[in-house]
Amino acid sequence: MELSSLQKCDMLFDFYELAQSAGFLADGTDETVAWFDIFYRPSAELGGFCIMAGVRQFSEYIKNLTFSAEELEFLRQKGLSEDFLAYLSDFKFTCDIWAVPEGTPIFANEPVVKVKGPVIQAQLLETIILQSVNHQSLIATKANRIVRAAQGREIIEFGSRRAHGISAALNGARSAYIGGCCATTNVSAAHEYNIPLFGSMSHTWIQMFDSEYEAFCKFAKLYPDNCILLIDTYDTMDKGLPNAIKAFNDVLIPMGKRPKGVRIDSGDLAYLSKKIRRELNNAGFPDCNIYASNSLDEYIIRDMLQNGARVDSFLVGERLITSASNPVMGGVYKLSAIEKNGEIIPKIKISENVQKITTPCPKLLWRLFDSETGKAIADVLSLEDEDLSKMHSYELFDPDYTWKRKTVENFVARKLLVPIFENGELVYSFPDTKSIRNYCSEQIDTLWEEVVRFEYPHNYYVDLTQRLWDRKQNLIDECFHNK
Amino acid sequence: MELSSLQKCDMLFDFYELAQSAGFLADGTDETVAWFDIFYRPSAELGGFCIMAGVRQFSEYIKNLTFSAEELEFLRQKGLSEDFLAYLSDFKFTCDIWAVPEGTPIFANEPVVKVKGPVIQAQLLETIILQSVNHQSLIATKANRIVRAAQGREIIEFGSRRAHGISAALNGARSAYIGGCCATTNVSAAHEYNIPLFGSMSHTWIQMFDSEYEAFCKFAKLYPDNCILLIDTYDTMDKGLPNAIKAFNDVLIPMGKRPKGVRIDSGDLAYLSKKIRRELNNAGFPDCNIYASNSLDEYIIRDMLQNGARVDSFLVGERLITSASNPVMGGVYKLSAIEKNGEIIPKIKISENVQKITTPCPKLLWRLFDSETGKAIADVLSLEDEDLSKMHSYELFDPDYTWKRKTVENFVARKLLVPIFENGELVYSFPDTKSIRNYCSEQIDTLWEEVVRFEYPHNYYVDLTQRLWDRKQNLIDECFHNK
Repeated sequence: MELSSLQKCDMLFDFYELAQSAGFLADGTDETVAWFDIFYRPSAELGGFCIMAGVRQFSEYIKNLTFSAEELEFLRQKGLSEDFLAYLSDFKFTCDIWAVPEGTPIFANEPVVKVKGPVIQAQLLETIILQSVNHQSLIATKANRIVRAAQGREIIEFGSRRAHGISAALNGARSAYIGGCCATTNVSAAHEYNIPLFGSMSHTWIQMFDSEYEAFCKFAKLYPDNCILLIDTYDTMDKGLPNAIKAFNDVLIPMGKRPKGVRIDSGDLAYLSKKIRRELNNAGFPDCNIYASNSLDEYIIRDMLQNGARVDSFLVGERLITSASNPVMGGVYKLSAIEKNGEIIPKIKISENVQKITTPCPKLLWRLFDSETGKAIADVLSLEDEDLSKMHSYELFDPDYTWKRKTVENFVARKLLVPIFENGELVYSFPDTKSIRNYCSEQIDTLWEEVVRFEYPHNYYVDLTQRLWDRKQNLIDECFHNK
Repeated sequence: MELSSLQKCDMLFDFYELAQSAGFLADGTDETVAWFDIFYRPSAELGGFCIMAGVRQFSEYIKNLTFSAEELEFLRQKGLSEDFLAYLSDFKFTCDIWAVPEGTPIFANEPVVKVKGPVIQAQLLETIILQSVNHQSLIATKANRIVRAAQGREIIEFGSRRAHGISAALNGARSAYIGGCCATTNVSAAHEYNIPLFGSMSHTWIQMFDSEYEAFCKFAKLYPDNCILLIDTYDTMDKGLPNAIKAFNDVLIPMGKRPKGVRIDSGDLAYLSKKIRRELNNAGFPDCNIYASNSLDEYIIRDMLQNGARVDSFLVGERLITSASNPVMGGVYKLSAIEKNGEIIPKIKISENVQKITTPCPKLLWRLFDSETGKAIADVLSLEDEDLSKMHSYELFDPDYTWKRKTVENFVARKLLVPIFENGELVYSFPDTKSIRNYCSEQIDTLWEEVVRFEYPHNYYVDLTQRLWDRKQNLIDECFHNK
């Protein structure tokens, strides 16, 4: 019996990417320089903004992209040309890639990654970049929503067992940390990305002993500095909590230690937490935290806190690691321009679904901050030769309802896309995960509360400059006379 | 700058698994034999049954489980004992594992994986097994729902760009194929698991040329045997389809080839497909298939077919690869018994949530088939010394409403759990993916239509034998007098 290696996925392509790249080679257009934008489409479920993530993983993938003889043989059987296989066997990456740094709040319809390079290469990156950004931004965004719902209380990520595979667990834990979780229970993620590691106990520990009290005492003795007892195996209030308090008194106190917490995983968590808090305080353990878990998300946590729940730390699993309320981030990879005979030719995709019409041209993405408050005013897409940082006043206008206009002054304009690859070389120095997490928190503080709100958030402006808007409009008009 | 390897996840544990295993070692109970069951909890969203998958991936993981010096050093910093680290550094797996073969229909509350072995080892497998089974069964189940909705039309999996990471895409494609999809667009998945590979074209191909017609002609010339043209880049009916028909006539027909299809990715797919079918037939291409894509799932496909859509093949992406309508399979890993002084002691977990109470004892899982029709009658959990295959008549009863009883005769009882590991050795020979897919389809045919129905399916019986039911009831009673 042959067992394949566990995570072998050296050809993360949809087949048409290879077929089309082979086609460009056959057509002699393989070296035509193309620009692609990655952006996500609006979704009410995602809230008013998302958190950028996944840049590191797609960069690693691209950096290591090679094709083995055995893979080339597989592709030969699938009908790709010998010329193209020869090209792949000597594959050398030479594109430029810009991306919005991980941890940055991002908005629908703005380019968060931009690729420029020979179309034969740039076409190959579609699935690689999209998957990494779609997945990790989704989880960072969901985590951030949950963290905000908890109003300063800790959120611990523990979804590995319900994640969609190993990389979903690993990079999901990283994204959750970027989004504001304080720890993960996943050992590899903690190790790989230097995320604080959290552990308590499961029902198995309790069940292995003759009594719950014995199980608690044994655990307390072994882990006196990290003693969090799970108290709902038999009966939370009548058995679990009294046994835990007795074990604290019998084992920890004589050792000069304090308990770290108790955990509940069933029953009505809000109701139980209030009763437990009272009992723990009466027993002399006001410093013993209450941990709660059981299919939590931002909505349940918000409601629990409204019920006066006395939970100090929430363990959030399946609904975070799958972003269960909306498990899809709809990022897309669209051609915006090509260079032909030294001229840049903008490209557009028209669609019967109006929101699927793309914005053409190689672009810059600007964020305008109010100089006084530091708050973000708007994001603006411009042509590459426009410099908003040098303007003293700028007129924003809605790209759909163009009569809605507003002039802003006293702003600082910052370019959001930073170089990741230059001529195929990785030039970006990835910050450590904790720095990204801190940066994320700071950047969210630049958003108005109305934008950050969970439901029906204020629509943040993502506008085009007049010149870019004109180019787009001209192309739309042209499309109805040609092709 | 240091970049980590892409998919390193050698310690797929939740930390408590390690902490507890270390605890068993310290307590001297590490060699106590324990039995664990993996089962999923009922969920209306999953429908009447699920499709088992993920056995191969957890088996590979367990087979390769080792701990490097560097990993051990990390665990040392996390406070695990030197004795336990020494144990891990010489880790030798000796457990027995049984599982329901991949592709089998499974039901809530029945053990689909059973682990028996020293608790220090068995405790470590919790997250590894759960993640693999939860993820892959979820996707196989969703795929099967979509395949059934399409009533014999092809379903092609193309969700990689929206999957939750590389393993979600790779093993998701495998699970989708097991569940009945006919192909994947993911090149690595096709390569790794020998799944038919599908490719057509994207809007980029069209946009790279001066006109849609030119793009179509170039593609047809390059891929005359696999010519599927995407016709919605500018205007499906007025431009895309006429251009495609012209390219078929101008390029393919002179080559003696027939077109394979046209694809639509926007607009009202049902409406467009009917108009396209008429035009293709009129143009002499009744054999040219219509491919449709755009956020499809079983509900949309069912409704489209009710609208008389003339789609031959559906490409299904994000809503399949994330199981978007229900992205979580709630499988759990629960202790059912331990051996102490040669005696098997059943274990139960009580809960305030009644559906969270577990079924104790080492168990067998039987499926009873009607001897005449071959249809599945019921699944029965028994103690390990009960043999239903030797009974001529058997009385089923509802474990909650025990007065609901029914005696069956003329049945064949088949054990569903088969050995995967014996004393730590992998003894199961994994069938190739195509065989699993065929087996899955055959096994679903043994279910009554009422069980297979999408919404409000008939509740298939998952019963306990009288002896097992009695053991469980006794333990529940005991729990209210002890602990």
